[in-house]
Amino acid sequence: MTNIITLLSDFGSQDGYTAAMLGYLHTHAPTHKLQEVSHNIEPQNIWQAAMALKRYSRHFPANTIHLVVVDPGVGSERQAIALKCDDHWLVGPNNGVLSLASQQYRSVTAYALKNNTPWWQKHHSFDGLALFAPASARLATHPEQLLEFAGAIENYHQLTFPTPELIGDHLVGQIITFDRFGNAITNIEKADIPHQSDLIAQCQQQQFPLRPFYCDASADGRLSLINADNLLELALYQSSLQQNMSLEVGDSVSVRIK
Amino acid sequence: MTNIITLLSDFGSQDGYTAAMLGYLHTHAPTHKLQEVSHNIEPQNIWQAAMALKRYSRHFPANTIHLVVVDPGVGSERQAIALKCDDHWLVGPNNGVLSLASQQYRSVTAYALKNNTPWWQKHHSFDGLALFAPASARLATHPEQLLEFAGAIENYHQLTFPTPELIGDHLVGQIITFDRFGNAITNIEKADIPHQSDLIAQCQQQQFPLRPFYCDASADGRLSLINADNLLELALYQSSLQQNMSLEVGDSVSVRIK
Amino acid sequence: MTNIITLLSDFGSQDGYTAAMLGYLHTHAPTHKLQEVSHNIEPQNIWQAAMALKRYSRHFPANTIHLVVVDPGVGSERQAIALKCDDHWLVGPNNGVLSLASQQYRSVTAYALKNNTPWWQKHHSFDGLALFAPASARLATHPEQLLEFAGAIENYHQLTFPTPELIGDHLVGQIITFDRFGNAITNIEKADIPHQSDLIAQCQQQQFPLRPFYCDASADGRLSLINADNLLELALYQSSLQQNMSLEVGDSVSVRIK
Repeated sequence: MTNIITLLSDFGSQDGYTAAMLGYLHTHAPTHKLQEVSHNIEPQNIWQAAMALKRYSRHFPANTIHLVVVDPGVGSERQAIALKCDDHWLVGPNNGVLSLASQQYRSVTAYALKNNTPWWQKHHSFDGLALFAPASARLATHPEQLLEFAGAIENYHQLTFPTPELIGDHLVGQIITFDRFGNAITNIEKADIPHQSDLIAQCQQQQFPLRPFYCDASADGRLSLINADNLLELALYQSSLQQNMSLEVGDSVSVRIK
Repeated sequence: MTNIITLLSDFGSQDGYTAAMLGYLHTHAPTHKLQEVSHNIEPQNIWQAAMALKRYSRHFPANTIHLVVVDPGVGSERQAIALKCDDHWLVGPNNGVLSLASQQYRSVTAYALKNNTPWWQKHHSFDGLALFAPASARLATHPEQLLEFAGAIENYHQLTFPTPELIGDHLVGQIITFDRFGNAITNIEKADIPHQSDLIAQCQQQQFPLRPFYCDASADGRLSLINADNLLELALYQSSLQQNMSLEVGDSVSVRIK
Repeated sequence: MTNIITLLSDFGSQDGYTAAMLGYLHTHAPTHKLQEVSHNIEPQNIWQAAMALKRYSRHFPANTIHLVVVDPGVGSERQAIALKCDDHWLVGPNNGVLSLASQQYRSVTAYALKNNTPWWQKHHSFDGLALFAPASARLATHPEQLLEFAGAIENYHQLTFPTPELIGDHLVGQIITFDRFGNAITNIEKADIPHQSDLIAQCQQQQFPLRPFYCDASADGRLSLINADNLLELALYQSSLQQNMSLEVGDSVSVRIK
């Protein structure tokens, strides 16, 4: 089976920076399949990229290399890392962008990529082409040389979800992100809330009854549901809740735990 | 020749949902080529997706599977369908999104996909990954098992263009969509209007003389032409007519039929 | 090694026009890899496409065909051209969009594509599908027939950067484009300015000290640096300078040459 390299970034596609990386990969890892994920991550939004990677990484075949370049610290002392997660590799800057996905694997071994090798040198403004594409190509084609271009490390930067708080008989969480449809995704997990049919989430004095499907919304269109990531999500049926209520990341969402 | 699976959706790319589907397809249909079309369909805009599919489906080689997931009714009773159209397959929800393209083929046989099989189960919020990707992979790799996971159906949901009306000596149609350049595409077909060199379309008291090329616009930049889909299109040379005149889908466009 | 065809356009992806071209290429050049670059070039922005192509073209392997369709003059007398640049081909309209990239190669031979051949005919509104995709497929699969569908030409349209002016002891250039992060890219080249550690660029009475890295910005976040294209770039650390200062293409940027 042909192996795969995936690519996620916040570069946009229209400036040609990502295509330069793809050209490098086609040249130096010519028998791999390249699968672009997105270049539309909000500029420098590490959380958005980390949550996306968590959603897709494990659906790819064994030996896939997942490269993520969302890198506000380019040029600084932040390390470039590669994580061996079961039979996948995650490659990117050590700023937490790989951490949420890595937490889903049983076994993780972390390596720091060297800054200067015969194949790449750290760059002042565009490590995507100068370092990350070459390192991914090298890992793809010469994995047995790993210790020539990387060294094992003990720890790497972890993002952590804010934990919902129990206040009286309410569990109070918050909005952590929005999807493209304007649905509000919270940090309240399926396991945090009781199995009950009449549960109602609250946000800004509005009520969002828990429903199995979007199309089961109440008359005003509001509902909550457990999404494909097992997180509580607030929605407005066939519309953007984010725009409708001018919601923002960090806004409180509560659920009464009877 | 390697066979192809194409993918069109309204998921955006930045949340990683489409990449999860692609990962599934790479894993379960590893010898197929995957060709993404777009994930930028306006959220839940079935018409936009249906017109896009109509434009591209027939240009692909025999045995291509065209998957479209624009699915406002996810979780409801709407069926998931697969249409055998000559030597192509169209796969998606039964909400009309496949219908405009299917009307271009000589032979169409329709199947409803089962909701629960050994390979997939209908999901409450993300059938793209739970049902449509697995069904497409199964169709790609085991087409001979079709009747194990789908049953023939008589009818499927059809979108129909509003028909232009003849009022006096004017044919009155409407804007059905805009393209990325802000050109206004109408429901008036090439066959509806006389072959004549001095034809002038009207919209909001403005005149749009019919011209062969965009660059033949009159001094004010306005023109109409017959586009690549054989539909009458209104344009403003090197600018966005949609923005310039604040046009909307449904606005009237008329042509005098002498 | 499998050969590659890349595609850059301003069509957007959501209308299905680019997918029609891809379908044609999959059908008629089935053993080539297709690598989309972007369809998000600003409508009819030849400069943006030309600068992107310049960034990525040379990173691809030998024999790559780079197709660019940003074509405000479709239907007019502008020629369709193919440039043999060392071991790459650049294909597109003769409006300058290929010129900046071509200037980077040692050897360039220019050909005009015929308007009508057994494989394509010039179209009134969509040469992407009618002419450019077929011509690229023909070039990919039958390069030895080049002179059956193209003729050598002496010259092709060249874009030229505005040259910075020396006024007193200041070099005065201008903003030529913005990247996705809102960084302002100027026409002042690395070779134009002295190697010195205290250089300060000016724009609208604001100062932008030259720094090696984005993260070395001064307290107000403003800095300038030499980017990956060896051009002077103005930036606002972790923010969009374009939005913050409402900058536009053409705005003056000056540097004191001591």
